[in-house]
Amino acid sequence: MLDAHRIDQFKDTESQGGITDIKLWLTVNRIVELKAMVKDDPVPVELEGWVWQFRKQGKLAFVELFDGSTWKIVQVTLKKNKLPENKFDLIDEIYRGAALRIKGQLKADGRAPHGIEVLAEDMDVIHPSNEEFDQQVPQDAGVDVRLNKRHIVIRSPKTSAILKLRSHILKYTRDYFYSRGAEEVTPPTIVEAQAEGGAELFEIKYFDRKAYLTQSSQLYLEAAIFSLGNVFCILPSYRAEKSRTRRHLTEYTHIEGEYAFMDFEGLKEYLEDYIIYLMEQIKENDSDILELFGKTLEVPSKPFPRVSYKEAIEKLKELGHDIPYGTDISDAPERDLVNHYGVPIILEHFPTDMKPFYHKINEDDPSITNSADFIFPNLGEIIGCGERETDIDSMLDRMAKMDPPVNPEEYYWYMDLRRYGSIPHSGFGLGLERFLVWILDLDHIRDATLFPRLMNRVSP
Amino acid sequence: MLDAHRIDQFKDTESQGGITDIKLWLTVNRIVELKAMVKDDPVPVELEGWVWQFRKQGKLAFVELFDGSTWKIVQVTLKKNKLPENKFDLIDEIYRGAALRIKGQLKADGRAPHGIEVLAEDMDVIHPSNEEFDQQVPQDAGVDVRLNKRHIVIRSPKTSAILKLRSHILKYTRDYFYSRGAEEVTPPTIVEAQAEGGAELFEIKYFDRKAYLTQSSQLYLEAAIFSLGNVFCILPSYRAEKSRTRRHLTEYTHIEGEYAFMDFEGLKEYLEDYIIYLMEQIKENDSDILELFGKTLEVPSKPFPRVSYKEAIEKLKELGHDIPYGTDISDAPERDLVNHYGVPIILEHFPTDMKPFYHKINEDDPSITNSADFIFPNLGEIIGCGERETDIDSMLDRMAKMDPPVNPEEYYWYMDLRRYGSIPHSGFGLGLERFLVWILDLDHIRDATLFPRLMNRVSP
Repeated sequence: MLDAHRIDQFKDTESQGGITDIKLWLTVNRIVELKAMVKDDPVPVELEGWVWQFRKQGKLAFVELFDGSTWKIVQVTLKKNKLPENKFDLIDEIYRGAALRIKGQLKADGRAPHGIEVLAEDMDVIHPSNEEFDQQVPQDAGVDVRLNKRHIVIRSPKTSAILKLRSHILKYTRDYFYSRGAEEVTPPTIVEAQAEGGAELFEIKYFDRKAYLTQSSQLYLEAAIFSLGNVFCILPSYRAEKSRTRRHLTEYTHIEGEYAFMDFEGLKEYLEDYIIYLMEQIKENDSDILELFGKTLEVPSKPFPRVSYKEAIEKLKELGHDIPYGTDISDAPERDLVNHYGVPIILEHFPTDMKPFYHKINEDDPSITNSADFIFPNLGEIIGCGERETDIDSMLDRMAKMDPPVNPEEYYWYMDLRRYGSIPHSGFGLGLERFLVWILDLDHIRDATLFPRLMNRVSP
Repeated sequence: MLDAHRIDQFKDTESQGGITDIKLWLTVNRIVELKAMVKDDPVPVELEGWVWQFRKQGKLAFVELFDGSTWKIVQVTLKKNKLPENKFDLIDEIYRGAALRIKGQLKADGRAPHGIEVLAEDMDVIHPSNEEFDQQVPQDAGVDVRLNKRHIVIRSPKTSAILKLRSHILKYTRDYFYSRGAEEVTPPTIVEAQAEGGAELFEIKYFDRKAYLTQSSQLYLEAAIFSLGNVFCILPSYRAEKSRTRRHLTEYTHIEGEYAFMDFEGLKEYLEDYIIYLMEQIKENDSDILELFGKTLEVPSKPFPRVSYKEAIEKLKELGHDIPYGTDISDAPERDLVNHYGVPIILEHFPTDMKPFYHKINEDDPSITNSADFIFPNLGEIIGCGERETDIDSMLDRMAKMDPPVNPEEYYWYMDLRRYGSIPHSGFGLGLERFLVWILDLDHIRDATLFPRLMNRVSP
């Protein structure tokens, strides 16, 4: 492995004249970067990584090496007469998963994967693997085996690519938020009560009392804007939902933000810009990963179509779904609706009676709220958002009407935000894994996270 | 509030000639930035924020405005004859916490806080406050009141400053990790078993079974290095400790990393560089916050003193603490030890019998491990770290000897990491809140997080 430190050393040395005499400690990633630099001259390198594929043909062998620094593999060519005595025979002891150290010459080769190869001059086995490795997750393994062996599955370049992209999206997200002047906070995940609570809460034994795992940090973020201005958090959220759809995890990464002095229209634009920024970044920096998954990303243009809940109900009738006004639009009709448009849409202005007390009632039509969901083709809701109610009387009235009624005493601190210097503000929540499923068109949300948590799955 | 977008618009316009005719929508933060730009000419601005302090003297009034975009306040000067009719009288309805909109002229003023002031030309009350606000948290309020009213307490510029610095440290941390080629992952926080487990685990009702809240993501990070190379995570960790010290939260922000092909010596250097990088960034970018807390930061130089556990026991005897070899060094002697050195120290090579099975046994002396704690003056342990054991027989042996014994079946996936292509690797964990307490010399760790979770505290 090479850290940025060392590559910088390398670059310094290069500028002082010549690179071929430096012994480099390289990641596969760096090799890809270096390819352009080395041009025609081979570069001496030292690689550490794991065997992905390998084959032997007489006195010649090929090993595909993977080190996790990119999802890409690098082809190592072993020639018996180029290696120290007996080293070539080590190839007979190699299995997928073995950790190797290779010293050799890096060069361009149009026939090799990604156009580069390393011609080995020495090889050591850091730690072997064996024939059991491939039996851990056979080609025809079912879901349970794959999840029990998730620690093996994640070692494949394709799963590595998903987890890389996940890491990159987290970075692009923070970059976007920082550039717009927001601070990161970490509200507690252990909570006493939850506004949307009920059956979907995980209960914790908290010393001699009960507590719950959070479903959203929204209310805490609203409190934090009075301290920090615009704020965001990226934390686990939890849903104890008895659901086995391809869209539900019991623990997921929730990206949430609240914005001071931002109204509903400003919020929707901010989120359009965020989605477009993410997609442009992915297109620019992660095109290889998209290619691996056969995806060509079409960045949607602004404005995304705005569809009011009322219009949606009418449109759905045309599409053959008879949904009573004021009831939830479930997954299947939601997908039919968005696929009718073929681009992400903003489904907005849900009826007041359908939404919790904190959604702002529309000033022109009190029967609807300034709330919206961003619905993505083939998938469904990825973002829920809205302007927040600041009228304390309206909130108290709606808390009493909720089923079961919400006790305002439990939210004394939240109500206080409306008592002293209340301000217009808006916010959102995005499920990271759903976004990843959409970007890469994954079969199931369990593939979009390191070790998924599902209704029947809490290990490894 | 002004987002980066708008400030860019402003800059563009400026370069096209003159700024005085642009109506600016400014955060306090931007005012501070703009101060240098405006020189002697006043700049028309529009501000939104909350009243912190205010006073009226006849036809003149001063309001200190706070908007969270920085912990700094901006002085607004109101002159009766400069305001539209009746607007000056609004000052009589103002209380701390009220949200105001001010239009006026920004200019330098050496007598005002931070050297700038806004001369108001118009004022609106967005939402009032009242006399109750200051009674929420009286000057002499006890700990319980302050925690019940944490949503009010965080509105003070000083608490805002702590939370700002917290946000910045998270950013510096990720910058450092990214620059060294690590990827962010999010291991699950709901787990089935924990290697250090026992009495300090929070139990969850997970559908029809039990599960627990994580104490560390280390083992999952170790699995992830086979997929992604160097990895880190910044997630909540939980300790159900019946402890009321100033150093313990039940939920805290745990910064953890695991590094492929990194040995114990490399790890300690990496972490020294990380601490020095953090402190240099804070010194450079957050000097105002340090000043507010009366702190002058002395960035420690490399190498931090290495003190073996054995040496520490001897040194502690000299300092009057008689601690039997092989037992834990508790908080008080630990502080005496580090204060003896006066700089952060690396307490290393804990006896094998004291440490869990995953710490690597030292190659030269099997009675000690390649483990270390970074101990900071006046506080204690901030980082725990070590090289990880890769010898499966040693691990099985030590699992059996643990009290209670650890069942290797529960860690089948972790043991597999040592079965197929094991590699040398090392990692660490840092408690963000402890680091903040140390940097700002805070009285208690509960002040270092948005809404603290303590043994007797799970709300707001």
